[in-house]
Amino acid sequence: MITDFQSWASQRQAAIEQFLEARLPGADCVPVRLHQAMRYSVLGGGKRVRPLLAFAAGELSRADDERVTIVAAAVELIHAYSLVHDDMPCMDNDVLRRGKPTCHVEFDEATALLTGDSLQTLAFELLAERQLSDDAGTQLAMIKQLAGASGSRGMAGGQAFDLDNVGKTLSLPELEFMHIHKTGALIRAAVMLGAYCSDVLDTAQLETLDHFAKCVGLAFQVVDDVLDAEASTATLGKTAGKDAENNKPTYVSILGIREARALAGKLQHDADQALHEFGEAANRLRQVTDFIITRKF
Amino acid sequence: MITDFQSWASQRQAAIEQFLEARLPGADCVPVRLHQAMRYSVLGGGKRVRPLLAFAAGELSRADDERVTIVAAAVELIHAYSLVHDDMPCMDNDVLRRGKPTCHVEFDEATALLTGDSLQTLAFELLAERQLSDDAGTQLAMIKQLAGASGSRGMAGGQAFDLDNVGKTLSLPELEFMHIHKTGALIRAAVMLGAYCSDVLDTAQLETLDHFAKCVGLAFQVVDDVLDAEASTATLGKTAGKDAENNKPTYVSILGIREARALAGKLQHDADQALHEFGEAANRLRQVTDFIITRKF
Repeated sequence: MITDFQSWASQRQAAIEQFLEARLPGADCVPVRLHQAMRYSVLGGGKRVRPLLAFAAGELSRADDERVTIVAAAVELIHAYSLVHDDMPCMDNDVLRRGKPTCHVEFDEATALLTGDSLQTLAFELLAERQLSDDAGTQLAMIKQLAGASGSRGMAGGQAFDLDNVGKTLSLPELEFMHIHKTGALIRAAVMLGAYCSDVLDTAQLETLDHFAKCVGLAFQVVDDVLDAEASTATLGKTAGKDAENNKPTYVSILGIREARALAGKLQHDADQALHEFGEAANRLRQVTDFIITRKF
Repeated sequence: MITDFQSWASQRQAAIEQFLEARLPGADCVPVRLHQAMRYSVLGGGKRVRPLLAFAAGELSRADDERVTIVAAAVELIHAYSLVHDDMPCMDNDVLRRGKPTCHVEFDEATALLTGDSLQTLAFELLAERQLSDDAGTQLAMIKQLAGASGSRGMAGGQAFDLDNVGKTLSLPELEFMHIHKTGALIRAAVMLGAYCSDVLDTAQLETLDHFAKCVGLAFQVVDDVLDAEASTATLGKTAGKDAENNKPTYVSILGIREARALAGKLQHDADQALHEFGEAANRLRQVTDFIITRKF
């Protein structure tokens, strides 16, 4: 086991990149423009936060690395599809992502639309094509969990709730509702799918892990809002200050930056508390949580 | 068993409508605009050709009706999502579908984007949430088949190939390649998923059924091109003559209308031949094939 977090994270990020590189259809495969756009939107960038969480949860449940790589890639594909669609002119109309032109700018809108669609499909294909659990029924439950986390009662629903409320004043519970769906659901799925790749955790332990994942998901978003309010476009690799410019409610706009930072700290504490019962087996999850809270981009 | 085709089809169309009505999130469920748009785009319209094929294949394999209803609904959700996205301004920019304003016209583009995304997700959720085969491994294979049929090597890939070739002259094999992906793959998935709900067919029989499905899928598209070239907007319930207007290659533009009709006849013959070995058990599939070939809208 690699104990140094940076080495571990780099190795896992490379494993995900390598897997996706090999599994995405080749750039010379017809229809070439679509496949080029899919590879452009997925490869060579991103912090891979969700895969790291899946790997860390897989370490807790002593799951097989190859299995975890697949579920981590599936979650990352859902995340990548959502970014491609969110950046489109009819949504956030953003031109920069991970320091590169967004998909619809580099290619065109129709290709970006089909790219997002196809990345979502590929995520579910990955979860069905190889054995990911000793029990096929558990694997079906994993697919159900990712679908629930991604659809209109999960990530896409959070995005729709966000759009419905641009320019409106949200209460803190409403903002929390939005983020539990928009970002939280997929982060939770990343943790749970990683753990489900083995069957060593019992129901109570899985519930504890789920509670941890909810805290981390919210903390991730609070930190995101703080970074967006503070950082420059160059540091973020995406257009900074967009939330304020678009008059979108954020933790910073509702709480102020000082209180938002304090909330992130409280959520990190809650996440740590949830992991207490797992002892040292959860060290990797603690490290990923620290990384999420203290990141600068 | 209901032998009259019209009664049978009406009953199955009603069963799909009822299932989707109950399964789609309610119109008062937050985020309401997204859920209203999802229901608007799926309910109360369409010929439900793919569900009818799934039900007919399920009859051949003596599958449980409730299981077939779920796979039929999943395939129809993929079809519905593709229509919502295809109609958007960056794709076909169409304003009329099934006699009603298209989703982005009735709602807005951002909602249409999220509606298509969420309908796709729901399709995979349906295939994972209840038992659809006595063997969970077979159910995973069904999910893999639907994903393969829908993604960049299937339906979405066919759509991308279509966009890449607007204004170009396609050969007949290229046109066939496009339609095998764009429409054929999902029709094939409808037939095979219906059959997979039971395990009475052996591998050779499933291959024969797959060959039948390929013929029907192509025949469906040839008839579609003929109808688009001939019919009025009022009859079709969608904007007629769009293919010629958009300078899109069709079977009619390449073969002429007379030859295109002859090709549809030949494909129907091939489909019938494939069903020969199944005897009377395939009568429902024969009836649905006749319906597809002789439809006027």
